[in-house]
Amino acid sequence: MPHTIALIGGTGPEGRGLAIRLALAGHTVTIGSRDAARGASVAAELAHTLAGRAHGALAGDANEGAVAAAEIVIVTVPYDGHRATLEALRSALAGKIVIDAAVPMRFERGPRPVDVPEGSATEEAAAILTASRVIGAFHNLSAEVLLDPDAPVDADVLVTGGDAEAKQIVIALANEIAGVRGVDAGPLRFSRFVEQITILLVGINGRYRAHSGVRIVGLDH
Amino acid sequence: MPHTIALIGGTGPEGRGLAIRLALAGHTVTIGSRDAARGASVAAELAHTLAGRAHGALAGDANEGAVAAAEIVIVTVPYDGHRATLEALRSALAGKIVIDAAVPMRFERGPRPVDVPEGSATEEAAAILTASRVIGAFHNLSAEVLLDPDAPVDADVLVTGGDAEAKQIVIALANEIAGVRGVDAGPLRFSRFVEQITILLVGINGRYRAHSGVRIVGLDH
Repeated sequence: MPHTIALIGGTGPEGRGLAIRLALAGHTVTIGSRDAARGASVAAELAHTLAGRAHGALAGDANEGAVAAAEIVIVTVPYDGHRATLEALRSALAGKIVIDAAVPMRFERGPRPVDVPEGSATEEAAAILTASRVIGAFHNLSAEVLLDPDAPVDADVLVTGGDAEAKQIVIALANEIAGVRGVDAGPLRFSRFVEQITILLVGINGRYRAHSGVRIVGLDH
Repeated sequence: MPHTIALIGGTGPEGRGLAIRLALAGHTVTIGSRDAARGASVAAELAHTLAGRAHGALAGDANEGAVAAAEIVIVTVPYDGHRATLEALRSALAGKIVIDAAVPMRFERGPRPVDVPEGSATEEAAAILTASRVIGAFHNLSAEVLLDPDAPVDADVLVTGGDAEAKQIVIALANEIAGVRGVDAGPLRFSRFVEQITILLVGINGRYRAHSGVRIVGLDH
């Protein structure tokens, strides 16, 4: 069943990459941006990338408008805008499934974690968005891979959260991206571990000149 | 080139499992224990498990004796004994490669991290063992899988540390275990992220009734 999905901060590499893959999976995707025209311009660019392929609708809008029309919202803002962005959208996000994909990371001679008082970006989102169904997911997929519709995605999406029904919807959403498997990675308090895997992957990408991802093995034993 | 390897706290499931796989790779392995007789008894039991297969020598000893004879030492003590065990062996471990595989984890309605002032068990080891070459590795392999010599191991070992030569030796050691690949996962300060993946895997094992591990994908792009 196709969803209407908004990406907050959807103009960055991770947001654009997820938009491509979710549109290819048949969903209606809105690229949210602080600037509606910028959102629309990125959506047009992504539609051009997908020309000739079957895909769901791609549009752009201001974050507020994108969120208002969506059932599911994915947060792909850089971490330094995370708290302020969510506080501003708090009432618009009430009642919706909010998937936090932000990684609290900064660069100073290599990637480093940013301390978050709540423990993780996802727990911070849950603390702000008390009327939303906050789930952590989509932290560990390579933006470079997602952005190239010909590149096979071969990776798991680790999903954390306390709302069991919302979590199953997000796992199913991940499974709809070709080559991706959603894995229930535990409660909200495990979100930090998943977010910080991205720091490991960014380091590995530099060291191995790769676009790496992660798979959990042994689930079929 | 076969190494002489001691496992400190080698009588637990992870220590015994690694002993089996390292002996199968042809290394000389000593199971260290606080009690030399207990180490010898576990070594005899593991040799019995490996009867009929080619393997390196397996013996047991007190931790001190096991360490004295070894070039490479792997620390597989439960985290609550980590600091005291390493402080007691500080001079015996001087000059040696010490691979820390301990995971700071406790159980209270599920697995949880234990806060380590130094950031991770491996950094704690490095702070205590200033004359050793401390590397983090072997945190994420399933003990249940390692313990069954017929079970294929299909997982990566994420290796952290600041001593580039020692790190390469540990990556090579991981690669010698059938089905395992060693991956350079970055500097010592990334050790926490690797250790905490084990908490995710323990949770996943419960949820999926699995013996899970982790693979980094995309390294061959």
